[in-house]
Amino acid sequence: MNRILRVNTRSGELKWHSCSREEQRWGGRSFIAHHFLNEVDPLCDPLGRSNRLIVASGLLGDTPATTAGRISLGGKSPLTGGIKECNVGGAVGKRMARLALKAVVLEEAPQDPKPRILLIGKERAELIDAPQLGRRESSDTLETLRRRFGDRCGFLVVGPAGEMGLGGACVATTDHTGVQLRVAGRGGLGAVMGVKGVKAIVFDAEGAEPAPPADRSALAAASRELNRILRDDPKTENRHNFGTPAVLSLCNALGILPTRNFSSGQFEQAEAISGEMIAELIDKRGGEGGKGLPCVQGCIIACSNVFADPSGKTTVASLQYENLGLLGSNCGIGDVDAVAELNHLCNQVGVDTIETGAAIGVAMEAGIIDFGDAEGARDLLRQVGEGTPLGRIIGSGVVTTGRVLGVRRVPAVKGQAMPAYDPRALKGIGVTYSMSPMGADHTAGNALETARSHDPLSREGQVEISFRLQIRAAILDSLGVCLFIRPAFVKDPSLTARLLNARYGWKWAYRDVRNMGLDCLHAENEFNRLAGVSETRCDVPEFMRTEPLPPNDSVFDIPKEDMDKIWTVQLPEDVF
Amino acid sequence: MNRILRVNTRSGELKWHSCSREEQRWGGRSFIAHHFLNEVDPLCDPLGRSNRLIVASGLLGDTPATTAGRISLGGKSPLTGGIKECNVGGAVGKRMARLALKAVVLEEAPQDPKPRILLIGKERAELIDAPQLGRRESSDTLETLRRRFGDRCGFLVVGPAGEMGLGGACVATTDHTGVQLRVAGRGGLGAVMGVKGVKAIVFDAEGAEPAPPADRSALAAASRELNRILRDDPKTENRHNFGTPAVLSLCNALGILPTRNFSSGQFEQAEAISGEMIAELIDKRGGEGGKGLPCVQGCIIACSNVFADPSGKTTVASLQYENLGLLGSNCGIGDVDAVAELNHLCNQVGVDTIETGAAIGVAMEAGIIDFGDAEGARDLLRQVGEGTPLGRIIGSGVVTTGRVLGVRRVPAVKGQAMPAYDPRALKGIGVTYSMSPMGADHTAGNALETARSHDPLSREGQVEISFRLQIRAAILDSLGVCLFIRPAFVKDPSLTARLLNARYGWKWAYRDVRNMGLDCLHAENEFNRLAGVSETRCDVPEFMRTEPLPPNDSVFDIPKEDMDKIWTVQLPEDVF
Repeated sequence: MNRILRVNTRSGELKWHSCSREEQRWGGRSFIAHHFLNEVDPLCDPLGRSNRLIVASGLLGDTPATTAGRISLGGKSPLTGGIKECNVGGAVGKRMARLALKAVVLEEAPQDPKPRILLIGKERAELIDAPQLGRRESSDTLETLRRRFGDRCGFLVVGPAGEMGLGGACVATTDHTGVQLRVAGRGGLGAVMGVKGVKAIVFDAEGAEPAPPADRSALAAASRELNRILRDDPKTENRHNFGTPAVLSLCNALGILPTRNFSSGQFEQAEAISGEMIAELIDKRGGEGGKGLPCVQGCIIACSNVFADPSGKTTVASLQYENLGLLGSNCGIGDVDAVAELNHLCNQVGVDTIETGAAIGVAMEAGIIDFGDAEGARDLLRQVGEGTPLGRIIGSGVVTTGRVLGVRRVPAVKGQAMPAYDPRALKGIGVTYSMSPMGADHTAGNALETARSHDPLSREGQVEISFRLQIRAAILDSLGVCLFIRPAFVKDPSLTARLLNARYGWKWAYRDVRNMGLDCLHAENEFNRLAGVSETRCDVPEFMRTEPLPPNDSVFDIPKEDMDKIWTVQLPEDVF
Repeated sequence: MNRILRVNTRSGELKWHSCSREEQRWGGRSFIAHHFLNEVDPLCDPLGRSNRLIVASGLLGDTPATTAGRISLGGKSPLTGGIKECNVGGAVGKRMARLALKAVVLEEAPQDPKPRILLIGKERAELIDAPQLGRRESSDTLETLRRRFGDRCGFLVVGPAGEMGLGGACVATTDHTGVQLRVAGRGGLGAVMGVKGVKAIVFDAEGAEPAPPADRSALAAASRELNRILRDDPKTENRHNFGTPAVLSLCNALGILPTRNFSSGQFEQAEAISGEMIAELIDKRGGEGGKGLPCVQGCIIACSNVFADPSGKTTVASLQYENLGLLGSNCGIGDVDAVAELNHLCNQVGVDTIETGAAIGVAMEAGIIDFGDAEGARDLLRQVGEGTPLGRIIGSGVVTTGRVLGVRRVPAVKGQAMPAYDPRALKGIGVTYSMSPMGADHTAGNALETARSHDPLSREGQVEISFRLQIRAAILDSLGVCLFIRPAFVKDPSLTARLLNARYGWKWAYRDVRNMGLDCLHAENEFNRLAGVSETRCDVPEFMRTEPLPPNDSVFDIPKEDMDKIWTVQLPEDVF
C-alpha cells in the first residue's frame, strides 16, 4: 500500500504518487492527521476549494488480521470546523489493499459541482460524468453502480444530502455481499465529497495483487494468535449474537440512554428497542433477516444484522445501537420497526443517524412535531431528501437546527451531535466529547466499558480514562481495525507491534504503537489550534452543567480546568 | 452617570450599583469591552444564561456636545461568537443621562422566556409581565409603550425575530419625536435581549436631573467650538441634505456597491436608489416625507430623512445607505419604493437590514427567488416574522442561510454579513472586516473616506489605514458620539480631551483619548481570543480572494500574514 491517488476535482487532473518514506509509516486516521497538518490550510472553508477529502487505508489494511480493512475518511469538518476522521467497514478496504492504495485524496472543488463517478482500477483512474445519478438515493445509486461496474467492486457514495452540501451528510458503502449499507457518518464529510462533485468512488481491484508482507509467516502467526484470543473472549460471542444493540439495556440501566432530546437517561420503552428484542424478532420473523454477519470480509466477530419487517422483508442492515438511541429513545419512539425505517431513510437520503436523530429530537423540542411521532420524523427525513427549507435545516445538523428553530438545549460539542451516551451520568465520555479533536464522537474514546470498574458518576479519574481511551482510539483507527478486537490487545498489547513488524519489517515495540496514537492526537490538535477550534466550544453544552439528568439527577461537573490538562496527564502504560 | 442597574432576568432581582472608580472612566463601547473581559465567561453560549446584554451610555452622553447621546449595546454575539458592540441614536441616550445611568446590564436568562417590560425610572426599576406584546412588531410595540408610559420616555424593543432568538435580530428605538425608528442592528443582539425575556426597556427620566459637569463653562465652550467647526465644514451640509445615501453614487463609481450577492461592484440601476434621487423624491412628493432630521435631539448635522410613498405617506424613516446597498442593489432591486418597504419590513420584524439583505441575496443565489424579485423578498420577510422554516433560516443571518441553502458565495466575516462596501475594490475595509473584533462591520473602521487620498485598489498601506480607523471608531463609540463629527476632531484632536476634562475634571491630553480607543480594542481582542474567535475565520471569504469583482476585476489580495500584524504596526499620531 504505497500508492496515493490525487484527484483535482476542479481541473479533472488525476495523479498517482508513491508514498514518501514518512507517509508509509502512516495509515488511516494518522495518515489523515499528518496530511492535513502538512498540506491543508487550517483556515480553509470546509466546503470550499482548499479543503480535501481523503479515503485512507489502515496500516493493517492489506493483512489477514481480523476486522482489518476498515477505511478512514478525513477532511476539515463543516460541523466542527476542525479535522475529522470517521471510519467504516465494508468492501472498500480490501479493494484498496489489492490496489496497493494507501489513500485517495480529493483536492479542489468545481465551480458548479455535478455528479461524477471516480473510477479507480489497477494502474488507471478516471472521472466520469454521471448526471443520471443526480439526487439519487444511496441504495439506488449503489445498485446502479453494481450493475455497471460489477459486484466485486467497492463503492463509496453520497446521497442527496451530500450533493446539497448539508452538514449532516454522510458517505455510504456496502459490505462485500451488497446486503449491508454501512456509513461513514460523522462530521459532515458527505458534504465535503458532494461539493467536490464526486457522487461515487468505485474501487475495481480486478487483476491487482496486494504487495507481499515483509514476513508472511510471522504475519499469519500473529493473525492466528489474534483470532485465538478473540474466540476465547466471552464478549466476542455476545457481540456476534447481539451486535452493538447489546449495550442498549446497559445504557438504560446506567441512565445514560438519551431520551426525548437528552431530558432523561432512561426510556420507558427501552426493552422494545433493546438488543435482546431485536435478536428475538430477527429469529422469529425469519425471511431476509439475519444475525452474525461480518461488515468486513473475514471478520470472525461478525456482529452485524439484517433487520426485517414482520413479513420478513429487509428494513435496514445493520441496525445499530447509536441509531436506536438517537432515532429511537431520543425521539421518544419505542417502535423498533419505526426506528429501523428511520434508520433506512437516513441511509438513503445520506445523512448521519446520530446527527440527524439529534436534530429531529431538537425539532421535537421546538414543537415542529411531537416526541414519539414516527410518522412526523419520516416526513422530516423525506423533506431532507427533497431539500425543502425544513428538510435542509434538519439535514444541516443539530446545531443549525437548534439555532434556526430557537432551541437552547442542543446536545452537541464543537458543532457536532452527541452519540447515545449522556455525559452527565457517564462522565468519562463527557471528557472525550469536550476534549477530543473529533468533537462529540463516541468512537474517539468511549468510557462505557469503564462503567463497571469505575463509578461513571464520579468526577475523579475521568480525565485520565478519556486520555487513555483517546490514544487507543487513534491507534485502532490508524491500524484500520475494529474496536471489538480490543480484548486481544488487552491480553497482549505487543500483538499490535508484532502485526506491524510482520507486515512492514519494522522493529517496533508496543510503546511505539502507543506513541503513534499519541502523536496522531497531537497532530490533530495542532491542526485544530491553527483552525481556531481548540480553545473554543470545548465543553459540554451549558444545560448539561446545570440541568440534572434523571434518574441519577446528576450534572456534568468535571471542571473545565481539569479537562484542559488532559494532554499533560501521565501517559498510561497500557492503553488497551 | 455613575449608576449601573443590574437585572437578573431569571430571578427577577434588580440591583442598583454605583460605578467603581475604574468603571467611571469607561463609557459605551469601552464599558462593554471591560465589563465582558472582567465578568463574562468568554466560552458562554451567546443565547444561554451566562451571556449578558448591556445598554451603555457614552462618556459624553450627558453633555451638550452635538450628537452625544448615542448608546452602545453589547453582548457576546450569536453570529460572531465574540464580543459585539453596536450603537444607535434616538431618545434613550438623553434619558439615560438624566437618570445618571452609565449602564443597564441584563444578566442570566429565564428557563422559558416570556415577554416582559423593563421599566426604569428615577430611583426605581421594575420587570413587568407583558404577554400582550408577544410577537408584536416593532412600531406596534413602540406605539403601545408610548401610550402606556408617555411619549417623553425612551424605548428599546425587540421584534418577533428577537423573541425567536434569531441570529439576525436587532433592537429598535425611536427618536424623541417618535417619527423615526432607529436600529442597533449588528451581531444579533436582539436575540440576546429576546431570550432574556425582555421585549422592551422603557427609560422614564421624569423628575430626574443629570449630574452637573466638573466645569460647566469649559464644557459649554468646547461644545460651541465643536459646533462651529462642524458648521464650517462643507461635508456637514451635504450630510444634512442627503444623509448617508449620499455615498451610494460614490460607491457605485468606485465599483464597491454590492450587487446581486456581491457578484458586481456596480449596479445598473444605481441612480434610481441614489441619495440624489431620494432627496428629489422627498422634495417632490411632500406629505409626511422630510429631510434633515436629527436622530439624537440637538444634533446640528441632522442627516436623517422620512421617506414617503408617492401619496406622501411614510414608508420608512430613516432610509440609509446600508439598507439601499443590501436590500437594493445586492438583491438586484432598483425600485426605491420597494427597497424602502423592505427596510420597513425588516424594522418591523426586528432584523438587521445588513444581515438580512445579505441573507436574501444568498437566498436569491440559491434560486429560492430571483434577483430583483421585490415581491418575493417581501414574502421572505413576512415569513421571518411568522417564523416559518424558511423565514427562520433567513432571519438567522447570512452564514446560516448559506449553509442551509448550500450557497458557497457567502459575504461574511466571523459569521457576520458584510455591509455595503465590497472589500475587493476598497481593500482597507477588507482589513477591518477581517481583523476587527467586531467582524464584518463598517462602523468599526470604514476606509471609504480614504478612497480619494489613497488608491482603494492598492494593497499597500491598507493595514495601517484600518488600524487608525479602528482606533478612531473605538474612541467615538466610547464617547457616544457620531462618526459625522469627525471633521471637528480632525481639525482639533485635543477637543476630545477638552470635552472629557470639562465633564469629568480629568487631566487628559489627546494621546490619552487615543490610548483609550486602543485599549478598548485590546480588551475586545483578548475576550475574543479567550472565546476562541480571534485566530479563526478572520479573513474575507474564499471567493473574494479568487473571484474578480467587476468592473475593476480585482480580488482581495492583502496577505493574511500582513493583516495579522495589524496590532503591532506603528501607532498613528492622529487617528481622526
